[in-house]
Amino acid sequence: MEEIYLDNSATTRTCDEAARLAYEIMTKDYGNPSSMHMKGVEAERYLREAKATFANILKCSEKEIYFTSGGTESDNMSIIGAAKAGARRGRHIITSSIEHPAVARCMEMLEGEGFEITYLPVDPSGMVSADTLKAALREDTILVSIMYVNNEVGSVMPIGEIGAAIKAYNKDIVFHVDAVQAFGKYRINPYKENIDLLSVSSHKIHGPKGVGMLFVKDKTKIRSTVYGGGQQGGFRSGTENVPGIAAMALAAKMMYESFDEDINRLYELKEYFTGEIAGISGTHLNGPLGRAGAPHIISVSFDDIAKSEVLLHSLEERGIYVSSGSACASNHPGLSGTLTAMGIPKNLIGATIRFSMSVHTTREELEKTLLALKDILPVLRRYKPR
Amino acid sequence: MEEIYLDNSATTRTCDEAARLAYEIMTKDYGNPSSMHMKGVEAERYLREAKATFANILKCSEKEIYFTSGGTESDNMSIIGAAKAGARRGRHIITSSIEHPAVARCMEMLEGEGFEITYLPVDPSGMVSADTLKAALREDTILVSIMYVNNEVGSVMPIGEIGAAIKAYNKDIVFHVDAVQAFGKYRINPYKENIDLLSVSSHKIHGPKGVGMLFVKDKTKIRSTVYGGGQQGGFRSGTENVPGIAAMALAAKMMYESFDEDINRLYELKEYFTGEIAGISGTHLNGPLGRAGAPHIISVSFDDIAKSEVLLHSLEERGIYVSSGSACASNHPGLSGTLTAMGIPKNLIGATIRFSMSVHTTREELEKTLLALKDILPVLRRYKPR
Repeated sequence: MEEIYLDNSATTRTCDEAARLAYEIMTKDYGNPSSMHMKGVEAERYLREAKATFANILKCSEKEIYFTSGGTESDNMSIIGAAKAGARRGRHIITSSIEHPAVARCMEMLEGEGFEITYLPVDPSGMVSADTLKAALREDTILVSIMYVNNEVGSVMPIGEIGAAIKAYNKDIVFHVDAVQAFGKYRINPYKENIDLLSVSSHKIHGPKGVGMLFVKDKTKIRSTVYGGGQQGGFRSGTENVPGIAAMALAAKMMYESFDEDINRLYELKEYFTGEIAGISGTHLNGPLGRAGAPHIISVSFDDIAKSEVLLHSLEERGIYVSSGSACASNHPGLSGTLTAMGIPKNLIGATIRFSMSVHTTREELEKTLLALKDILPVLRRYKPR
Repeated sequence: MEEIYLDNSATTRTCDEAARLAYEIMTKDYGNPSSMHMKGVEAERYLREAKATFANILKCSEKEIYFTSGGTESDNMSIIGAAKAGARRGRHIITSSIEHPAVARCMEMLEGEGFEITYLPVDPSGMVSADTLKAALREDTILVSIMYVNNEVGSVMPIGEIGAAIKAYNKDIVFHVDAVQAFGKYRINPYKENIDLLSVSSHKIHGPKGVGMLFVKDKTKIRSTVYGGGQQGGFRSGTENVPGIAAMALAAKMMYESFDEDINRLYELKEYFTGEIAGISGTHLNGPLGRAGAPHIISVSFDDIAKSEVLLHSLEERGIYVSSGSACASNHPGLSGTLTAMGIPKNLIGATIRFSMSVHTTREELEKTLLALKDILPVLRRYKPR
């Protein structure tokens, strides 16, 4: 059976080029970058090239690029590291009510350690406003963490406006942005957008799992939370994952090579898909439509469907892979925080499917998915338990 | 030029089987284990198989196996997590004076947070004694962290004796063992040896970089230090590095498949090499000889050599890759803590080379290395600055 993978916000297929590069490095250039001999020097060269790639994309210095084990570690390091470094200046932190658990759970932990967290509300389309943020800034605010693109509905936050507002209020406030769903889909410029810390995950951009990137703007007040051999300037100890890092950098580079073309095509696909979905009765599109939202994420709630899981598995039977909720959280139950914060009714939250595309998604795949939905929905609705 | 890689304690070449498996998973079975559809289920199967592999090797339950980004993270999680969980019971921690920086730097951090650390001395061969440990145990001791095999000289700690002594004193004291250099070289049985936490690194056993294993004995008092999506039972959040984990498990399995044969051959090679080294004038073998030490690590100090780096680079010119110091620390200067703790004179510490073998090391490679040493040493000694 042909597979139609529409769960790219959960994870992407590693592209052949990146996987091949990882394989080559694992078996040939396998040196430890800390080794003083040639095999160490070779390995270090991959790290330098990877830094150059990200510095080029983000228009920053290579010294501001660090490598981690993924988005979760990048988020954890940022938030905990900035909170520890700032604790003497103040204990107030601002975040949104729709952050990924890798951010939200850090906030809860810090709350337990005496920090005060302000959770900004979102509008019905899942957006934080810069005005709400401005109103929340305080003298003792030390950190603001706002995601770039929401992982469940694809809403896009006004990061540039928020960054400017933060720095106009107090330039010592650290601004962290979880860009896990945005990197590769937006041209992000941390300097222009006043971002101090930016998290990126490799496996969301066709790089391998288990590796991430963290941009740390020069002079940012942050403390290391990893202790060991002093790699990466002492900020992130541990032998560098050279094959993973090099493969991630290659994947990142490829995301920006035919960027405009790819993003335009994704928006065309999104427009087509959301238009067709709107034509099916009893459907609700969550998050901003068109270019107001991210190009790759489409969230749909269905009337009269008992549980999204049933629809998910019915699609799966036809080789179509989608997600209910965010799927970044380990298949645990419970209502989505994002959809709740957006004010979506409970019965619809439980009947929501996320379709997330990649640059490899085709119109034909979406056509087949729509046909499948039109087939499945009447049956599921007929058998809905009352 | 033929390459003779004798820096396997810094990192190993990923074996073809493991690298191929990682490649296959990256490009074919790339699902997110948290996804509810088939591609997620497939990915999760790799995790379960990897857990079964480690559980089988360590004679423990699959539920006691966790995956991390490497030895450093496994060590950090263990020490910081156990210290946090135990802080109410006491604030005394025991470790050795020859731990890897991934352990030692955690201890320094905890010292800054009000914990009291006892650093056990070692004998001239680099061994901690169980008696010294016993004398250091206190009512407020909550954690003991002792490495299995020292990474610089290959000394082996009496882990079983130490474990028994700890538990006889107070079974609530958590015993962490950094087994990064021991796994694959020793049959480790955490239950028999009274080990509660055991750290393993993939890239030291011919698995890929960027992945590690942590054994956490059931009911161990430890707190999670990673916050996010709740993967791995909430203990280690973050999308699992499926290709890395599966490849590490395969490499681990292979290490124990022809174990006795491999280890015997390594000891024969060690005996041959150390015997020949002893025949060269002005050489000093550090650490225990023969089976009293690890089978793969040989540390040699050379009289009348200005700096080990010069010898390292002279060997490198002949395609022979070795290490000065431990090379796990990012090529920073400073004297080796292990050799200092062993009482090796300063001038010899600066003139020390570590030769570390893998199961692929051949007698012919060692012969060539010895010939090279005999060639190089007289020249270096002649030109030694006085």
